[in-house]
Amino acid sequence: MKRILVDVMGGDHAPLEMVKGAHLAADELDCELVLIGNEEAIRRVAAENDLDPDRFEIVHTEAVITMEDSPIAVRRAKADSSMGISLRMLAEGKGDAMVSTGNTGALFAGATLIVRKIGGLHCPAIAALLPMQPPVLLLDSGANLNVSAEDLEQFAVMGSVYMRQAMGVENPRVGLLNNGSEETKGTSLQIEAYRLLSENTDLNFVGNVEGNRVMQDVCDVLVTDGFSGNILLKTMEGMGKLMLKTMKDLFYKNTVTKAAALAVKPYLGEVKKSFDAGEYGGAPILGVQKPVIKAHGSSDAKAFKNAIRQALSCAEKDLTGDLASAISALSYKRKEEKEKAEPS
Amino acid sequence: MKRILVDVMGGDHAPLEMVKGAHLAADELDCELVLIGNEEAIRRVAAENDLDPDRFEIVHTEAVITMEDSPIAVRRAKADSSMGISLRMLAEGKGDAMVSTGNTGALFAGATLIVRKIGGLHCPAIAALLPMQPPVLLLDSGANLNVSAEDLEQFAVMGSVYMRQAMGVENPRVGLLNNGSEETKGTSLQIEAYRLLSENTDLNFVGNVEGNRVMQDVCDVLVTDGFSGNILLKTMEGMGKLMLKTMKDLFYKNTVTKAAALAVKPYLGEVKKSFDAGEYGGAPILGVQKPVIKAHGSSDAKAFKNAIRQALSCAEKDLTGDLASAISALSYKRKEEKEKAEPS
Repeated sequence: MKRILVDVMGGDHAPLEMVKGAHLAADELDCELVLIGNEEAIRRVAAENDLDPDRFEIVHTEAVITMEDSPIAVRRAKADSSMGISLRMLAEGKGDAMVSTGNTGALFAGATLIVRKIGGLHCPAIAALLPMQPPVLLLDSGANLNVSAEDLEQFAVMGSVYMRQAMGVENPRVGLLNNGSEETKGTSLQIEAYRLLSENTDLNFVGNVEGNRVMQDVCDVLVTDGFSGNILLKTMEGMGKLMLKTMKDLFYKNTVTKAAALAVKPYLGEVKKSFDAGEYGGAPILGVQKPVIKAHGSSDAKAFKNAIRQALSCAEKDLTGDLASAISALSYKRKEEKEKAEPS
Repeated sequence: MKRILVDVMGGDHAPLEMVKGAHLAADELDCELVLIGNEEAIRRVAAENDLDPDRFEIVHTEAVITMEDSPIAVRRAKADSSMGISLRMLAEGKGDAMVSTGNTGALFAGATLIVRKIGGLHCPAIAALLPMQPPVLLLDSGANLNVSAEDLEQFAVMGSVYMRQAMGVENPRVGLLNNGSEETKGTSLQIEAYRLLSENTDLNFVGNVEGNRVMQDVCDVLVTDGFSGNILLKTMEGMGKLMLKTMKDLFYKNTVTKAAALAVKPYLGEVKKSFDAGEYGGAPILGVQKPVIKAHGSSDAKAFKNAIRQALSCAEKDLTGDLASAISALSYKRKEEKEKAEPS
C-alpha cells in the first residue's frame, strides 16, 4: 500500500481544511496517510469537527514555512518545518508521494534540492492544470523565469508523459505559447524552441498557441517560460473571477432578473466548477525523483482530497519512473546527435 | 479644422465597415476625413449601402497590405498601398492623424520608419486599452518583444501622458506587470524596471501588478514587454469569449432557463459592451510624431468611428507634442544624472 505524506500546515485554511481533506481521502482511497504538522493544532481541529485524528500517523513539527519565507528556508533555517520534514521523509523513502498547500517557491526549491532532480534534466517545472474542457497542462507555470529552448523541449516531454499517464490522453498535443501562429514568431527563445519541438518526432507538436487559443481545445500540453506562464495562469484566474462577478451583478439588477437567477441557479454550480482548478487536484512538480503535488493555497477539504488522490495515482502509476525514462531517452538522443555532428 | 487620414483597406470587413464608420464619424464629428483606398471598391460599397462617397476626399490606391505581408513591405514593395500612402501623407503634413485596421506589424513598422519617432525615444509602443471598468492602458501590447528597463520607463511616461490627456485620468497609476508583488520578483528586466519606476518622482508608480489583479482597478497604465503584453491581452480576449459562450450554454439548457434568458437579455448587451475593446476606439501607437491609431482588425462601423474620434481627439489635444515634451524631459533628467555620476 502506498504511503502519502501530507503537509497539513501552510495555505489559507490550514490545518482545518487539510485535516478534513485527509479524512475525505481516507474514506475514499486505499492508501496510508501520514499527516505532518503541529500535532496539537491537528488534534484540536479534529476534535472541534468530530474527526478522528487517530486514523493517521502524525509526525509533529513546530515550524511552518510562511509565504514570507525565502524558498531556501526549507533547507536551512526551517529545515524542521512541516514542509521540510515532509520533503526529507519523501527523499528518504518514508513515503511514496507528497502533498502540500505551502509556499510554492519553497516547495519547488525544496523538491529540487531535497528530493532531487531526475537524471539528465536541466530544471524541474511546476505544471498547472488549466481548468478548461478538456484541461490543458501548462508548464512552466511560474518556477523558472529564465529557461532555454532545450528546457522547453524537456517540459514538452514531461508534460506529454503526465497527460498520457495521469489524465489518460492518448497522444497529447503539445503547443508552444507564443505571440503569433507563424514559426518565426516570438523571441529567439520561442523560435529555437519551435525548431526543437517540430524536429522531435516523439512529440505530437501542434505549433504555436496564442493566448486567446489556449481555451479552444487546440493542445493538451502548453510549454512556456515561467514568467509568461504565470501571466497566463493568473490572467485566466482573474478573468474567471470577473466573469462570475459580472454574472452576479447581472442577476441582481431587479426582481425580474432575480427570478431568472433562480431558474439558472441549479446550473451555476457547474459553471463555477468548470473554472475551478481544484477539481483536478493540485499542480504537480515534474522532474523530481518522487511525486510532489502543490495544492492551491486556498484549497478547501475537497480540493485537498483531490490533490491527495492525484499524488496517490502518480505513485501507483510510477509517474516519476516514466518521466525519468523519457528524459533519459531524450538526453541520449541529443547526445547521439551531437556526436554525429562532431565525428572524432 | 483637423484632417484625419482614414486607411479603409485591410481588416476583416474592409472597406464596407470602414466606409460606413467614416460616414458615422462625419455625422458626429467636426473634422475633414480623407479616405485612402481603392476608389472603385469605396464607391461600390457606398452605392450598395445608400451612402454618399462624395462627402469625402478619396485618395485612390491599388495595393493593399495583407496579413501575410512582411512589416517592411509598407516601405518597400507596397509603399503605394493604402497604408503606405496614408503614412506618407501623415509624415508630409497632409493630415493631422491617421486610422487603420490593417496589419499591426506593418502599421507599427511604417509609423516608426515613415512618420518617425519623437526625439529621445528608444522605441515606440502599441498601447491597448483593456476594456475594464475603468480601462487600463497596456503597453507594449505586442510590438517590442525585447525591451530594456529604460524602455519600460519611457512606456510608463508615455502611458501616463495618454491616460491624462486622452482619458482624463488625473494622476494615472502606473503598474509593472510581474509574477508577484514583491520588488524582487521577475527577471532582471522587471527588477531593474521596478527600481527606475519607483525612483521616478514624476510617475505615480504603484508597484508590481500580477495577471489576476489587472482587472481589479489597481492601475491605469500597465507596462511590460510586448511578449507578455500580447499573452495578457489575448488571454483576456479568449476568456471574455469563453465567458459569453458559457453564459449562452447556461441559458440554452431548457425552457425554464430560456425564459430566464429573456429576463436578463436587456442587460446582456451591457455585459458584452463592457468587454468590448472597440468601445474605446483603437490602439494608439505612442512615440511617433503624429497620432496613428490601430483599429481592431474585426472592427465594425461603430468601433471604427470610435477610432476616428480617438484620432481626432489626439490631434486636437496635441498628444504627440505632449509626449515629445515628456520624453524630452525624461531624457534630460537621465543625462543630468549621468553627468553628476561621472564628474569631469
